[in-house]
Amino acid sequence: MRIDVITLFPELFERFLAVGMVGRAFSTGAAQARLRNPRDFGLGRHRSVDDTPYGGGSGMVIRVDCVVNCMEALDAEAVTPGETPVRAHRLLLTPQGQPFTQQKALDLASRPAIALLCGRYEGFDERVRSFVDEEISLGDFVLSGGEVAAMAVIDACVRLLPGVLGNAGSIEHESHSPALGGLLEYPHYTRPVEFRGLRVPEVLQQGNHAAIARWRGQQAEMRTTERRPDLWEKVKKERS
Amino acid sequence: MRIDVITLFPELFERFLAVGMVGRAFSTGAAQARLRNPRDFGLGRHRSVDDTPYGGGSGMVIRVDCVVNCMEALDAEAVTPGETPVRAHRLLLTPQGQPFTQQKALDLASRPAIALLCGRYEGFDERVRSFVDEEISLGDFVLSGGEVAAMAVIDACVRLLPGVLGNAGSIEHESHSPALGGLLEYPHYTRPVEFRGLRVPEVLQQGNHAAIARWRGQQAEMRTTERRPDLWEKVKKERS
Repeated sequence: MRIDVITLFPELFERFLAVGMVGRAFSTGAAQARLRNPRDFGLGRHRSVDDTPYGGGSGMVIRVDCVVNCMEALDAEAVTPGETPVRAHRLLLTPQGQPFTQQKALDLASRPAIALLCGRYEGFDERVRSFVDEEISLGDFVLSGGEVAAMAVIDACVRLLPGVLGNAGSIEHESHSPALGGLLEYPHYTRPVEFRGLRVPEVLQQGNHAAIARWRGQQAEMRTTERRPDLWEKVKKERS
Repeated sequence: MRIDVITLFPELFERFLAVGMVGRAFSTGAAQARLRNPRDFGLGRHRSVDDTPYGGGSGMVIRVDCVVNCMEALDAEAVTPGETPVRAHRLLLTPQGQPFTQQKALDLASRPAIALLCGRYEGFDERVRSFVDEEISLGDFVLSGGEVAAMAVIDACVRLLPGVLGNAGSIEHESHSPALGGLLEYPHYTRPVEFRGLRVPEVLQQGNHAAIARWRGQQAEMRTTERRPDLWEKVKKERS
């Protein structure tokens, strides 16, 4: 999987792409990343990429030409010499997009190439939307740029690639996974068996696998009904 | 505003806290950040912070004792010498929490101190939940750790602090802001006036402020009804 990131702050991604689970995806070659600054396609000797908004208002708007030229240049470049370049599936990260979900992560992780376009300032010139395939929002809050949203998309996707998580079981039994039927994950406990008067539940200490599985299923259901009635409604609908 | 981050990967935050709008919040002193690794409170000569789950299953679980000791140590430490330490409002970042929203960002930005607890591996020992004030989820997807979620919370909060955004107008007229009545933001345009046949709308070029305001209001409403019928339902309810 190839991941292109178009950002005015490529340095924000350097450690992120090198550390932990995400780092493993890139160091093992399961995924390849390219960071590109639209400033390379900026105008004049200051490599300017933004300008004031038509019709007035505060803040600066990112120009459509710099951004589109940057995405097209990435698509035209082969990652490895001799390879036929693949056009990336282009995602604009914006609070006006569709909310990002685990289902979307699964869809993106199955694609050969995605490009993540990170905004800054007031946002993009509206015409940028004509040159992307999808618009994604991390949620109903506003970030100063698309970079953190891009990191969330990268993290959620690359951990789903084959061989990235050490133990494939981890993906199957986590929150929002199909194996849990859309429920939130059940509670986990590890040593010490008691901490400030709080003890590990007896059932988990006894090694009766059927009883443990039953307890975990009940806990996942209870947790979902209590915390996320909206998710629980979806689960009920899918079960019936 | 003091922001403590408890993470196994403090190095992920270094550039993030130094660059762009977020960087400005910390360099101007509007916010102060402390990064702390629970490994400093880990066990044995490997400073171990995780262990296998009771009842079996894949992955490792982060111990309650290391994490709680780390949070308490931070709360006991004064940021500046002589100051009385403030107990931070503690947030656990987990896919099982309540979805993060702009309303929550506004609430957190008004607090003197927050602590962001980032998970890794299978998650936390369940008992950690007894020592935090709130659990926050970035959305219905799974990340390999809480770090990116913590960055989103930091970004969304510090940009709301007085003096961080150059132009306060930017906050008032953006998506999910009260001034837009909960609507998504209207479209922005900047130069060039034409790009590959796509033109800036005439109304924005003519300088009639009343007409521009009307057009922007209509666009915000149209965009919200088309893209986010769920938000639109909320807006209608609040208007009536």
